[in-house]
Amino acid sequence: MGKLLLKSVSTIDGKEVDILVTGNRISRISEHNAQEADRMGADRILDCRGKVAVPGFINMHTHTAMTMMRGVCEDEYLQNWLNIVWAIESRLSDEIIYWGTKLAILEMFKTGTTCFLDMYWRVPAAVRASEEMGIRAFHTYNFLDNFDAETIARQQRECIALFEESKKWPERVKMGVSVHSDYTVSEENLVWAKNFARENGLVYTSHLAETAAETHEDEVKFGMTPAQHFDKLGLLDERTILAHGVWLTPSDVKMLGERGVTVVHNINSNLKLSSGYKFKYCELRDAGVNVCLGTDGAASSNNLDMREAMKTMSLVQKAWREDPTVLPLCRLMEVATSNGARALGIDAGCIEEGSLADIALVDKRSEAFVPDFNFLGNFIFSANSSCFDTLIVDGNVVMENRKVAGEDEILENANRLLKETIKK
Amino acid sequence: MGKLLLKSVSTIDGKEVDILVTGNRISRISEHNAQEADRMGADRILDCRGKVAVPGFINMHTHTAMTMMRGVCEDEYLQNWLNIVWAIESRLSDEIIYWGTKLAILEMFKTGTTCFLDMYWRVPAAVRASEEMGIRAFHTYNFLDNFDAETIARQQRECIALFEESKKWPERVKMGVSVHSDYTVSEENLVWAKNFARENGLVYTSHLAETAAETHEDEVKFGMTPAQHFDKLGLLDERTILAHGVWLTPSDVKMLGERGVTVVHNINSNLKLSSGYKFKYCELRDAGVNVCLGTDGAASSNNLDMREAMKTMSLVQKAWREDPTVLPLCRLMEVATSNGARALGIDAGCIEEGSLADIALVDKRSEAFVPDFNFLGNFIFSANSSCFDTLIVDGNVVMENRKVAGEDEILENANRLLKETIKK
Repeated sequence: MGKLLLKSVSTIDGKEVDILVTGNRISRISEHNAQEADRMGADRILDCRGKVAVPGFINMHTHTAMTMMRGVCEDEYLQNWLNIVWAIESRLSDEIIYWGTKLAILEMFKTGTTCFLDMYWRVPAAVRASEEMGIRAFHTYNFLDNFDAETIARQQRECIALFEESKKWPERVKMGVSVHSDYTVSEENLVWAKNFARENGLVYTSHLAETAAETHEDEVKFGMTPAQHFDKLGLLDERTILAHGVWLTPSDVKMLGERGVTVVHNINSNLKLSSGYKFKYCELRDAGVNVCLGTDGAASSNNLDMREAMKTMSLVQKAWREDPTVLPLCRLMEVATSNGARALGIDAGCIEEGSLADIALVDKRSEAFVPDFNFLGNFIFSANSSCFDTLIVDGNVVMENRKVAGEDEILENANRLLKETIKK
Repeated sequence: MGKLLLKSVSTIDGKEVDILVTGNRISRISEHNAQEADRMGADRILDCRGKVAVPGFINMHTHTAMTMMRGVCEDEYLQNWLNIVWAIESRLSDEIIYWGTKLAILEMFKTGTTCFLDMYWRVPAAVRASEEMGIRAFHTYNFLDNFDAETIARQQRECIALFEESKKWPERVKMGVSVHSDYTVSEENLVWAKNFARENGLVYTSHLAETAAETHEDEVKFGMTPAQHFDKLGLLDERTILAHGVWLTPSDVKMLGERGVTVVHNINSNLKLSSGYKFKYCELRDAGVNVCLGTDGAASSNNLDMREAMKTMSLVQKAWREDPTVLPLCRLMEVATSNGARALGIDAGCIEEGSLADIALVDKRSEAFVPDFNFLGNFIFSANSSCFDTLIVDGNVVMENRKVAGEDEILENANRLLKETIKK
C-alpha cells in the first residue's frame, strides 16, 4: 500500500503534526519531527508548512449534474424556475450528465468537498464521472413516479438492475436509494424503496417539508404533516436522510429525534427560492436529530460551496434566533463534515488515526487569515473557498496547488455541450 | 497624461470592447477592433480576453483598520464583543492604524473594491495608507464625545485642524465628517459637525437605527425615533449617509426619502451580531432613499468582501420578504457601485466615457462561470471573490494577476504588530 506523508501540517487547534496516510486511511498522526518524518518510508511527501488540515466537506444534498443548468433562471418564483428546468431536463443525455457531474466535482474539489450524496437521473453516467475524478460519492436511484402504475413498476425494476450493476463500482462509490417526495412518489414506491434500501444496507433519502405549500398539501391530502406521513409508512430510521425540513412542527422535530433520522439543511437554496429560513437547528439537535449541511443543486442555489454554506447557515441562525451565540464554529464544522459521515456510515469527516484519508489542506498565507486570532473564524467567516490548496480523497491527491487533472477538458466540454444542447 | 488600453474586454452584457483610459478617466469605449486599438497610442495595453470589466465596488460603511482585530471575538453578544474591542482599541497606535488600514485595503483590492467610506480614529495614519496603496477613499473625522464638555470642544478643534491638513491630501483621498451615533454624541456636536460638513462640502455619516435597543432608548429619551431625532436637529439631506437603518419605521422611511438621504445596508454585520435582518430595501428605494451597501468593520463581520455581501443581501431579501423576484441582479450591482458614487458625489460606479477609471476585471476562466448563461448570476451567486484578476483605481493598475505591490510586507508587518500589541 502506498504511503503519503503530510509533513509539518497544522491542525485546526494550531498544533504542528505529521500525518501519515497508508492506502486510503490515516495511519498515524504525530507531533511534527523532521527526523522521524524522514524515517516513515513515505512514497510521497507533501511539505505542508503554512497549511492547515481540515476534514473534507460532505455535501449531503445535491443534484450534481444540474450544475450544467447554473444560472438558467435567476430571481424567479419556484414554478417558473421549474418550467425552465424541466424543459431542459427533457433534453438531457448521458453525455451531459457525465460532463455535468465532472464539472460539479471539479467545483467540489476547488471548494474542499470530498464526498457527496447525489439525487439525480442517469446514474451510470454520473458514476463514471465520480469513478474517474476520484471523489467519494453516494449516487442514488431516484424514484419519481407521479403515481403512474407503469412507472411504479418500471422504477422498481430499474432500481434492482442498478443495484446489480453497483456491485462492480469501486468501494469509494456507493449506491443509495432516493424518493423525490411524497407529493411525487406513490406510497407503494415510498415503501418499496425503503424496504429495498433496508434489505441491501443502503441509505435512503428524500425531500421533506421544503415549502409551506407542500406541507399544507399533505395536511389536506393525508390529514398529517409530511414527517408524520413518512412515519406512518415506516420510512424513518437511522439510515433515512431528509433534505430541507424547513417547515417541521415541534412534534415532527421530537418524533424525528426519536427515530434517529438525519435532516439536511440547504440554506442557500431555501433563501434563494424564498422557501423559508427559520430552520430549527437547535431544536433538531436537542431532539437527537443528526443535522447535516447540503448545497442543493447549482441550478437553484448556483454553487456547491460548502464553506460558504456554513457561513450563511451560521449568519442566518444568529439572525432569526436573535442570538449570536448559537452554533459555535466547532459545531458548525461537524454539521458540514462528521455528521454527514455518520449519516452515510463511513469513517470520514474527521482527522484521526484509522479514518478514511479525506483531507483538505487550507493555505493560510493570505490577507484573509491575518491576523491569526481564530483559525475557524478566519476560515469560515473571512476567507473565500480559494483558500483550499490541496485535496486528498481516499488517500489520493486529487488537487494540488489548486490544480485538478483534466480541468481544462472539463470546462471545454461543458461549454461545448451547453452551446449544442442546453442553451436552446 | 498616460493612456491605458483595456483591449478586447467583455462588458457585463457580453459585448467585446476596447476601453481607453486617459489619465484617471475613461476616455473612450468602442467595439473591439484590433487595428484601431493599435492606433490609440496607449502607453500600456492589457490583453483582457476572457475578462469582464465591472465597476469597482464602493464600500459605504466600514471601520477599516479594525481588520487588525478580525476574529478577536466570535459568536458573542454585542456587549461582550465591545468590551474586548474597546480593551484593544485603548492600545492602538498610529503604526497599527497604518498597517491595519493597509491590510484592509489589500483585502479590498483582492475582492474588487476601489473606494470606501471610513469611520475610524487616527485619520492621518489611515490616510497615509490610502495614499500609498492608491485606493480612492473618504476618511472621516469621527465625533464620539460621550456628552463630555471638554471632549465636545476638543473634537471641534481637531476636526478643523484635520480639515486644514486634508487640503494637502491627493485629489483621490477626501475628508468627510462622521458622528458615531446620537447615543454617544452630544446634540451640540451632531449639529456642529453637520454644519461644518455643509460649509465645507463634505459628506456626513452616522450609525442610525442599528439595533432595537438603540431605537427604544431614543424613544424613551427623546420621545421619537433616531431618524426623527436626526431630522429635528436638521441633520438630514442629500449629503447625509446613514449606516444600518435596520429598525426604521414606515414613517421614518417616508421622511428619509423626502430628505433624499443615503442609507447603507450592512447585511453580514447585522446578521452576525443578531442586530436584525428585515432591512426594508424595497420601501426605502420606493420612498426615494439612495440605498447602498457596506461591510462594516472586519472585527464584527470578518471581511470586507462586497461581492459576498451582495449575495447575502439578495438571499436574505428574497427569504424574509418571501419573494424571489425582489432585487434583480442589475439593481443589486447598482446598490454596490453607482449608488455609492452618487452619495459620495463622484463620477464613479459605472463604466462609461467620462467616468473615473475605477474598474475591476473579472476572470471568467473557471468552473464558477460555466455554463455561461448569465454573467451577473455567476459573478454574484456562483463565484467567490478570487475571480478578481486586475483592479484599476483612478486610472492606475493597483492589482494585476491578483498581485498587489507590497502585499508580503503588509502581511508580515500586520502579523508582527499583532504579536507585539494586539494579542495581549
